[in-house]
Amino acid sequence: MNVLIYNEFRHEKDPNCRASQVYPEGIHTAIADFLKKEPDLNVRTVTLDTVEEITEDVLKDTDVLLWWGHMNHDDVPDAVAERVHNAVLNGMGAIFLHSAHKSKPFMRLMGTGCSLIWRESDDMERVWVAAPYHPIAAGLDRFFEIPADETYGEPYGIPTPEEVVFIGWFTGGEVFRSGCTWQRGCGRVFYFQPGHETYPIFYDENVQKVIRNAVRWAKPSYRIDDCMDCPNPPKAHKGTL
Amino acid sequence: MNVLIYNEFRHEKDPNCRASQVYPEGIHTAIADFLKKEPDLNVRTVTLDTVEEITEDVLKDTDVLLWWGHMNHDDVPDAVAERVHNAVLNGMGAIFLHSAHKSKPFMRLMGTGCSLIWRESDDMERVWVAAPYHPIAAGLDRFFEIPADETYGEPYGIPTPEEVVFIGWFTGGEVFRSGCTWQRGCGRVFYFQPGHETYPIFYDENVQKVIRNAVRWAKPSYRIDDCMDCPNPPKAHKGTL
Amino acid sequence: MNVLIYNEFRHEKDPNCRASQVYPEGIHTAIADFLKKEPDLNVRTVTLDTVEEITEDVLKDTDVLLWWGHMNHDDVPDAVAERVHNAVLNGMGAIFLHSAHKSKPFMRLMGTGCSLIWRESDDMERVWVAAPYHPIAAGLDRFFEIPADETYGEPYGIPTPEEVVFIGWFTGGEVFRSGCTWQRGCGRVFYFQPGHETYPIFYDENVQKVIRNAVRWAKPSYRIDDCMDCPNPPKAHKGTL
Amino acid sequence: MNVLIYNEFRHEKDPNCRASQVYPEGIHTAIADFLKKEPDLNVRTVTLDTVEEITEDVLKDTDVLLWWGHMNHDDVPDAVAERVHNAVLNGMGAIFLHSAHKSKPFMRLMGTGCSLIWRESDDMERVWVAAPYHPIAAGLDRFFEIPADETYGEPYGIPTPEEVVFIGWFTGGEVFRSGCTWQRGCGRVFYFQPGHETYPIFYDENVQKVIRNAVRWAKPSYRIDDCMDCPNPPKAHKGTL
Repeated sequence: MNVLIYNEFRHEKDPNCRASQVYPEGIHTAIADFLKKEPDLNVRTVTLDTVEEITEDVLKDTDVLLWWGHMNHDDVPDAVAERVHNAVLNGMGAIFLHSAHKSKPFMRLMGTGCSLIWRESDDMERVWVAAPYHPIAAGLDRFFEIPADETYGEPYGIPTPEEVVFIGWFTGGEVFRSGCTWQRGCGRVFYFQPGHETYPIFYDENVQKVIRNAVRWAKPSYRIDDCMDCPNPPKAHKGTL
Repeated sequence: MNVLIYNEFRHEKDPNCRASQVYPEGIHTAIADFLKKEPDLNVRTVTLDTVEEITEDVLKDTDVLLWWGHMNHDDVPDAVAERVHNAVLNGMGAIFLHSAHKSKPFMRLMGTGCSLIWRESDDMERVWVAAPYHPIAAGLDRFFEIPADETYGEPYGIPTPEEVVFIGWFTGGEVFRSGCTWQRGCGRVFYFQPGHETYPIFYDENVQKVIRNAVRWAKPSYRIDDCMDCPNPPKAHKGTL
Repeated sequence: MNVLIYNEFRHEKDPNCRASQVYPEGIHTAIADFLKKEPDLNVRTVTLDTVEEITEDVLKDTDVLLWWGHMNHDDVPDAVAERVHNAVLNGMGAIFLHSAHKSKPFMRLMGTGCSLIWRESDDMERVWVAAPYHPIAAGLDRFFEIPADETYGEPYGIPTPEEVVFIGWFTGGEVFRSGCTWQRGCGRVFYFQPGHETYPIFYDENVQKVIRNAVRWAKPSYRIDDCMDCPNPPKAHKGTL
Repeated sequence: MNVLIYNEFRHEKDPNCRASQVYPEGIHTAIADFLKKEPDLNVRTVTLDTVEEITEDVLKDTDVLLWWGHMNHDDVPDAVAERVHNAVLNGMGAIFLHSAHKSKPFMRLMGTGCSLIWRESDDMERVWVAAPYHPIAAGLDRFFEIPADETYGEPYGIPTPEEVVFIGWFTGGEVFRSGCTWQRGCGRVFYFQPGHETYPIFYDENVQKVIRNAVRWAKPSYRIDDCMDCPNPPKAHKGTL
C-alpha cells in the first residue's frame, strides 16, 4: 500500500516558531516515522518546495494521501489541487489534518467554506469517540486527551459528514466535530482536527493509532480513470464504467 | 396549528423530588404556558395518567406532539406507542425532550438503542449552534448556556441525524449531539437534550425559543392515511398515494 | 465467518405454488448452496418451523444473518424479532432479501413503514449500479438483468439510505431503490430487492455475486454486549464501551 | 422574493437547432413567463452574453438563482462561478436544471465530477415521486411523464443527496436520480434533470409546478456575509456569526 504525505514544511523551518523545536525535520517526517513501522505501508513524503512532484502518475500510484498545510495554502498551485481533487474522485483515499480544512484540495472536495472558529490558547482537548464501531476508532478508549492544542470550534462549515467519528471537547468551552468522513466520487475522505504545529501531537500514541486506522480505512477498493467523463453509450450497452 | 404535549408527570408529584418545587404543576404546564402565548398555536396537554387520551383521532388532529418521559417509559402502553409512531410516519411532527431518548415512540422511530452516558452533577452546559442556518436555531446567539443540567455524553446510539443543529459542551468534560433532526416517513422528528426535571430549564428563554422554532419546523405539510399500506396498483396507474 | 440464513419456507412447500418447483428444498438451501462454496464461510440455515433456534447465543455466534420472509412475517415471535434487532445493534451484520422489507426485524431497524408499490407481472428488471465504488457492487457490470421478477416501485418508505448501491428499472415503468445500506448501532444492514419466490433469481450469477459481496461487507469489525445500556460513569472515566 | 434566471442562450439562437423553434426567446424567457405569474416573485433574467451582470450586489439581492447551461459552461468566467458559489454558501438558494450538472457553480458546490451517462433518443421519461412528503413534490401525482427528453443515466457522480425527491425511468432502459437536494453552507441546492433544449419541457405543467415549488423551498431563511471567514473570538464570546 502506497502512502504519500504532503506537508507544507514552513513553520518548522522558522527558528522563531516553536514548531522548529517540536518537529525539527518537519511534521511529514514525524508522521512518516510511525507509518514506516507498518510492514504493509510504503511511505513517501513531499513538501511545498517539491509540490510539483505530485504528478498525475504519482497520484495514480498512491493509495492514500495525507495532507498538512496552514499558512501557505495559496502557494499550492491550482493545477496540483486539481490533480489531487481528481485523484480522490477517481478512487484515491485522502486524509486531511488539522489546518488542512482550508487547503485547496479539501475545500474543492467539500464544496463549502470549511470555516470554523479558532483560538490559540494551550487548551486541553478531550477527543470523544462518537462512533465506536467505526474502523477509524478501533482500539481506542471512549475518549483520549490531547494535553494542549489550538482550539477549533463550531460551527464548522462542511457538508453533513457521513460519519462523525470524533467530537472534541476543549477546556475553553468549545466543541468541534474533530473526526469526519465523506465519500467523494470513488474516494474516501477523512478529516482529523488535532495537530497544531507547535505541539507534539503527532508523537501521541492515540493520534498515531487514529492515523494508522484511517490510512487503512481510506484504501481504495475501486479506481476509475476519469471521474469527469460522461459516457454516451448506445442503448442497453453493458461493460464497466 | 394543534400542539399536544405529553408529560409523564410523576417526578413533579413526588414531594421528595426537587421537581415538585421547580414544576409544581408539571413540566407539561410549564411548556404549555409559553406555547399558549403564540396566537397561532392551539395547545393541549396529556399525562401518563390520561395517556389513553392519545387516540388515533386525537393524533390525526395534532400537528406537532412534544414528549417528555423518564422513569415510567414502560408504563406507556404499546398500543399508544404504536399509534404515536404511525402518526409520525403519516406526517405528524414530533419533538422529544431530554430523557425521552428512551421513550417507546422515539426508540421505535429511530430503530436503535438510543443509549448514551449520563451523570447527575449540576454541570453547566453550553449549547453550541452547529447549524446556524437551520430554522430551529433562528434568533439564537452562537451558543447559549444552561446553568445546570444532567450531563449526557457520547456515544449517542442514534442513526446518523440529517442535521445536528446543536452540540452540547459540559463543564464535566462531556460532549453530546444535543439537537438532532430526522425525517421518518412523512413526519419530521427533533430531539432536544436539555430538560432534566430538577432544573428550571423549561423557563429558560433560549430553550423556549428552540422549542417554539421546533414546533413550527415540525409542522406537517403533507399527511397520509396509512404509512403501512403497500398498494398494488395496475400498470401506469396515476393518482396520489 | 459464521453466516445464518433464515427463510420462511412455506411457499416452497405448497405444491400449488410455482416456488415448489423452483426451490424444492427452499430458498435457504439455494442460498446456502452457493455460499457454502466459499471456503471462509460457515453456513447454517433456519426456517419458520425452527425459528426458536434463533437464540441469543446463536446470534452472538453469527457474523451475518440473511433473512427471507413473505406471507408469514407475523408468525415470527416478537421475542425472536427483538433478539435479531438487538444483535444487529450489537454489531451483527444483516441482509434483508426481497419481501423481507415487511419483516419484523427490518421494520424495527428502519423505524418506518417500509411500504412500497408492487405488481406481479413477469416484468424484466434491469438493476443499475448507482455506486460502482461500493464493495457490494464489486465485479459487476454497469447493470445486470433479472429476466422476470415481481415489480416493486417507489415511493419506498425507508429512512434515507446511507448508500443507494442499486436502482432497479422495470419494463412495466417502475423504478426502485433496489440496493440500500444503513448503519444501525454497531451493525451494518443491507436491503436487496430481487428475489421473488416463483422465479429462479437466487440461481442467478449476478445476484449470487451481490449476496457474496454483501456478506463480506456486513461482517462486523466491532461488537458490544448491550446496545440498550446507558452507562453512568464517574467524571472523566475511561475504558471502552 | 427575488428570483434570478441564468440561461446560456446559445442553442436557441442557432437557426439549425430545434431549440430555436421551441424557445425562440430563450429558455430563460420561458421560465420567467410562468414564474412572473406568481404575485410574490420578482423575476429577472441574465444570459451568457450579459453574465457579468451577476455581480456580488445582484446576488446579495437574489433569493433564488436558477441556472441552465450546456455547451458553453467554460465560457462562464471563474470569477462569476466563484461569486455564485459563495452566494449560495452565504444563504442564497440555487436550482440547477438539466445539463447544468456540469456547470461551474454546481460542480463547485458538489465537489465531485457530476458525471452521468446520456443518450439523445426521444425517450419518454416517467418521473417518479420518491419523497411524496417533500415540499418540492407538493401537488404532484405519484409520477408524471415527459413525452420526450434526452436520457440521463446512473451512475450520477454526486455526493449522496440529502433527499432524492424524484427518480426518473426512461423507455430506453435507464434510471436517474432526477431530483436531488443538498444543503451547502447556509444555502439550499436543488438539481432537476428534465429540460433538454430541443423539447418543450419548460412549458409542461408538472415541470412548472416542480420549479415553482423548488423556488419557494430554496428561499433563504438565514444569510451571512462571508462563508469563508474563520473568526478568532476570545474565550466564551457570544454574538451571532
